[in-house]
Amino acid sequence: MKKLNILHLGIGNVGREVIRQITQQKKAVRDSLGVSLDYQGEFTSKNTPEEINNAIQNAPLPFVLIDTTASEKTLPFLKLALKRGGFVVLANKKPLSGKQKDFDDLHKLGGKRLLYECTVGAGLPVIQTLKNLIITGDEILEIQGCFSGTLGFLFSQIDEGMSFSQTVLEAKEKGFTEPDPRDDLSGMDVARKALILARILGRKVELDDIQLESLYPEKLQKLNVEDFLKQLNTLDASYKEKQEKAQQENKVLRFVAQVTPEACTVGLQAVDAASEIGSLRGPDNLIVFKTKRYSQNPLVVKGPGAGIVVTAAGVFADVLAAAKML
Amino acid sequence: MKKLNILHLGIGNVGREVIRQITQQKKAVRDSLGVSLDYQGEFTSKNTPEEINNAIQNAPLPFVLIDTTASEKTLPFLKLALKRGGFVVLANKKPLSGKQKDFDDLHKLGGKRLLYECTVGAGLPVIQTLKNLIITGDEILEIQGCFSGTLGFLFSQIDEGMSFSQTVLEAKEKGFTEPDPRDDLSGMDVARKALILARILGRKVELDDIQLESLYPEKLQKLNVEDFLKQLNTLDASYKEKQEKAQQENKVLRFVAQVTPEACTVGLQAVDAASEIGSLRGPDNLIVFKTKRYSQNPLVVKGPGAGIVVTAAGVFADVLAAAKML
Repeated sequence: MKKLNILHLGIGNVGREVIRQITQQKKAVRDSLGVSLDYQGEFTSKNTPEEINNAIQNAPLPFVLIDTTASEKTLPFLKLALKRGGFVVLANKKPLSGKQKDFDDLHKLGGKRLLYECTVGAGLPVIQTLKNLIITGDEILEIQGCFSGTLGFLFSQIDEGMSFSQTVLEAKEKGFTEPDPRDDLSGMDVARKALILARILGRKVELDDIQLESLYPEKLQKLNVEDFLKQLNTLDASYKEKQEKAQQENKVLRFVAQVTPEACTVGLQAVDAASEIGSLRGPDNLIVFKTKRYSQNPLVVKGPGAGIVVTAAGVFADVLAAAKML
Repeated sequence: MKKLNILHLGIGNVGREVIRQITQQKKAVRDSLGVSLDYQGEFTSKNTPEEINNAIQNAPLPFVLIDTTASEKTLPFLKLALKRGGFVVLANKKPLSGKQKDFDDLHKLGGKRLLYECTVGAGLPVIQTLKNLIITGDEILEIQGCFSGTLGFLFSQIDEGMSFSQTVLEAKEKGFTEPDPRDDLSGMDVARKALILARILGRKVELDDIQLESLYPEKLQKLNVEDFLKQLNTLDASYKEKQEKAQQENKVLRFVAQVTPEACTVGLQAVDAASEIGSLRGPDNLIVFKTKRYSQNPLVVKGPGAGIVVTAAGVFADVLAAAKML
């Protein structure tokens, strides 16, 4: 019986669910893959860097280091784990959407031992699908995606005539947004996902290079949350105008990430209502791969791209991909 | 540098394209995975079983046996390859959609070394997605799919008011159907795909157990192709009636495979025009996974599910999955 030791950084909602799923499926994994998944350590922000470093330094091979934090500070741990010959599984987007050099270093150190399916679309098959297209020799013409369930919800409501401010407030009330809705409305989270996809395409690009169009003007950035929410209705007229103009052309507004071998843009677009992206409703994520092989009809993956349970399952699937390599 | 030796059964259109893609990407694979993909033998129906057996018996490990035939007779070769510790990659559906015992034997012998992404949806990520859902502990409630580009084309035309006979004849003329269109219209190919999915769900089920509704009546089976095509228009009134009835209810006709833990049906259904399946157009394939985790909004994969180049790329991706396990 082979054994895969697990070290785990970040035991929040997703982290706990990963542990729950792995525990529940431990026997099934043993039976089907002949691998025993054994937790060796769980770490939170309460642990010192020394403790974490020591644990990684002394972890018996083969091991996998899971990162379900949202921290920029895990990079040295990830590098150490890869240097030692361990696997790394990331739900954390930060290490791959920071500096290009860090992205490159992680890939050089890790190769196939670096797994991060969950960083785009949670449990949906996005990263592996893209990597398979590339390595089998397909040529990526364009990737289009809607990677924010929150913004998907907003613009589905706006389709139906609700005002921008009303729908943001409703989304916040329902818990669909971050505590500060600007964290969603800035588009930064989507930009990080687009950046990861662009880099997989082989582009050398930094976060600042992405043409990112925020959904609120700069001047509202300084306000506290409460004042920001009060000012939201000053944006309603502009969004109403955009929505009506789109509607006249049989289009709808969607917050779209667009990645090509030449460019990377993230922002609001008026897209044909009948297109893949235009027909997207509510909080679903969508990714459309247009390639040389999938040119006339693209390859499309759609479904919930966020949420504790499906994100955890995506992390778990990467752990299993590691287990298969033993 | 690790080496993965390749034996390959069935060098037709797809087989040749697999060889072309692997040859073209050989260097990229070596650079990114550190594995050299080396062809050791190509076999067609001109080779005797003894020749093939000998080649498998003497193949140096690690090796992968690719099956891009459409033959029922490759089973002993596949079993021998797995027994020897080799990998097996199937585009051929027959070995997995024959007797349940053979499906079980192949899986017992092969485990993770048995790969067959291409048997459903060609290069689309279907099988691996389903297996990941299951092993991470999700519960599959229902799989719905349109797995025939040919039948997809037919019913898109019928949506637009074309007669059944007219659209079959047009599809045949365009080369979208098999030489004998009954090979498509019987639904047998779709049934084999549904069977494979049902078996992955753990069901013990034979091809005969599937409720398969052919698109033409039994009595037309005896005719030669020419006479069959002449008789096609006797079916027009019945399809017209079905289409109009569906339209009145805001539905469209689709040839649907439906797999649940309890049942497996393949046949014509009137589905909501606005549903995932109802909004499918033309020759695309579609698969909708409704699971405990993806319940309200399913996980959907869509795109061309047939064709030489994308099928070959799917085979190649499985070969790469094998290479990663070295």
